[in-house]
Amino acid sequence: MIRVVLDVMGGDYAPEKVIKGALLSLRCFKNLELILVGKREVLEKVEGEERITCVYAEEVIEMDEPPGEALKKKKNSSILKGIGLLKEGKGDAFVSAGNSGAIAGAALLVLGRIKNLRRPAIAIVLPSLKDPFVFLDVGAVSDCKPQDLYQFGVMGSIFFEKIWKVKNPRIALLSIGEEIGKGNQLVKKAYEYFKNSNLNYIGNVEGRELYAGKADVIVTDGFTGNVCLKLSEGLAETIISLLKREVKHSPVSILGMLLATPALRRFKKKSDWREYGGAPLLGVKGNVIIAHGRSDEIAIKNAIKQAMKFVSADLVKKLEEGLEERAISL
Amino acid sequence: MIRVVLDVMGGDYAPEKVIKGALLSLRCFKNLELILVGKREVLEKVEGEERITCVYAEEVIEMDEPPGEALKKKKNSSILKGIGLLKEGKGDAFVSAGNSGAIAGAALLVLGRIKNLRRPAIAIVLPSLKDPFVFLDVGAVSDCKPQDLYQFGVMGSIFFEKIWKVKNPRIALLSIGEEIGKGNQLVKKAYEYFKNSNLNYIGNVEGRELYAGKADVIVTDGFTGNVCLKLSEGLAETIISLLKREVKHSPVSILGMLLATPALRRFKKKSDWREYGGAPLLGVKGNVIIAHGRSDEIAIKNAIKQAMKFVSADLVKKLEEGLEERAISL
Repeated sequence: MIRVVLDVMGGDYAPEKVIKGALLSLRCFKNLELILVGKREVLEKVEGEERITCVYAEEVIEMDEPPGEALKKKKNSSILKGIGLLKEGKGDAFVSAGNSGAIAGAALLVLGRIKNLRRPAIAIVLPSLKDPFVFLDVGAVSDCKPQDLYQFGVMGSIFFEKIWKVKNPRIALLSIGEEIGKGNQLVKKAYEYFKNSNLNYIGNVEGRELYAGKADVIVTDGFTGNVCLKLSEGLAETIISLLKREVKHSPVSILGMLLATPALRRFKKKSDWREYGGAPLLGVKGNVIIAHGRSDEIAIKNAIKQAMKFVSADLVKKLEEGLEERAISL
Repeated sequence: MIRVVLDVMGGDYAPEKVIKGALLSLRCFKNLELILVGKREVLEKVEGEERITCVYAEEVIEMDEPPGEALKKKKNSSILKGIGLLKEGKGDAFVSAGNSGAIAGAALLVLGRIKNLRRPAIAIVLPSLKDPFVFLDVGAVSDCKPQDLYQFGVMGSIFFEKIWKVKNPRIALLSIGEEIGKGNQLVKKAYEYFKNSNLNYIGNVEGRELYAGKADVIVTDGFTGNVCLKLSEGLAETIISLLKREVKHSPVSILGMLLATPALRRFKKKSDWREYGGAPLLGVKGNVIIAHGRSDEIAIKNAIKQAMKFVSADLVKKLEEGLEERAISL
């Protein structure tokens, strides 16, 4: 049995869709036990169901609350209580679609960093024109040092290896030109670490090629990564809505788009972040998965599925070993 | 008459499409005189045409050449010669679709910065869900100081005002959260400058909202800006190609997309960077416009049109006055 702690209060569609996702997961995964954390009034509906344990937490950290203050004030929040259960050994992984800054902060505070690591990173799996790839950091560390980027590369590489069973994944740095020597000071200095490592470092990838499938792991700082991730989501929505707006001008076009609907639906599924589960916080002493803030039941189920994979792969230990093996002077 | 110096050797489709763009521009704009700079063998075809002057430059800086070295070695390049003509007062503006780093470097070297400015920036006009907006810097300064972002804001604001005749355009910083205090150190410090200025500063815009039309001018550092710009281009292409791939699986979908073609075409035109001309290098003592590397004749014509607007608006002088008026201790 794998025991996943789920924050039912986190996310734009919590608690309804999160609870739905929990029940869906239990139907899908027979070796799953869920520990649901949230308000009593919410949990009462599912209390007593098979393979569900309920833990009450009467406070909720809101999506837009400044993480630092929230963690100080709301000791009884579902996020802090949930991660506390991991620390006490009562759960194997923690999943939340809540305030990502608060989740990362709480994890760091309660669980701590793994050995030899400077800063944890949020990694996300994204679709490309070829195969899915890992992109990190997408928001944990806004101001990175070159050593951070190197360690993100090590962790991203191990993450990719363990989840897709691919040896020596191709790692690239996100930059403003493919040529070595292009980039800001951060990228230029990080390059030195990668070059001198035994990682499968293939060079720089430009913004244009982020989704081209050129690398298995693409490394950047948390500021650039977060901007890129959100820009991608926003732009995809903008393109679709502009398309729809144009189509509305003509009945023939409307008919056309209707006929193309099944293809559009397949496309949507392939490029749907919900299919790829949540984003693991790599580098804390525990399996912590940040699900998308707009998670519905499918997204929650996939985040739980991913959490189970991490537990089975013993990801935290593998990251610790990998960082030790590829240690650099920090 | 407005005298535009055009580098016919710059760009992926040079010289053919650039020459075509030159001839198209002369047909469209009656008050335009062109000074074409490039190899003799290329220019011979158009020599003697009305309102065209030819200046030979036998060297070409390639698109992927490291700018620093190229500028040292190729003194007879079309870029250096063309910008030299501006310096000598023989032209009012310079347009090139060539190596953007080399254009920026040459402009800085030959023309110099305007008074009170730390670093020039490349500004680009982009479409949004509402009206077009100015995004800068997209590649001139990879490592910015907070003061740079502030000055980019001042220049972007003046640029927007002069070109669209809109007073007090809304300025925002690109960041990783709308709340003040979110961002990396650079953005947080730049915020102080904006807050204390008399610019119409409206706060932060997230990556998700870059194209939402929330601000008229969006300011970022040259690394993030360049990554965002290229990511946007790449992603739009990826989405279209994934869509096409899905559609190919079914004849009904193909029919559907064919029927929707006029709408798709209208959409494409609206979101086409070629419609928005080139990207001015704001802050050098001269009107320098960097056209897209993949410019065809339409893009070249629009870049020339934009160059003419800058000359008419006396943009360089306006920028100088604006920076003086809004000077900060650097």
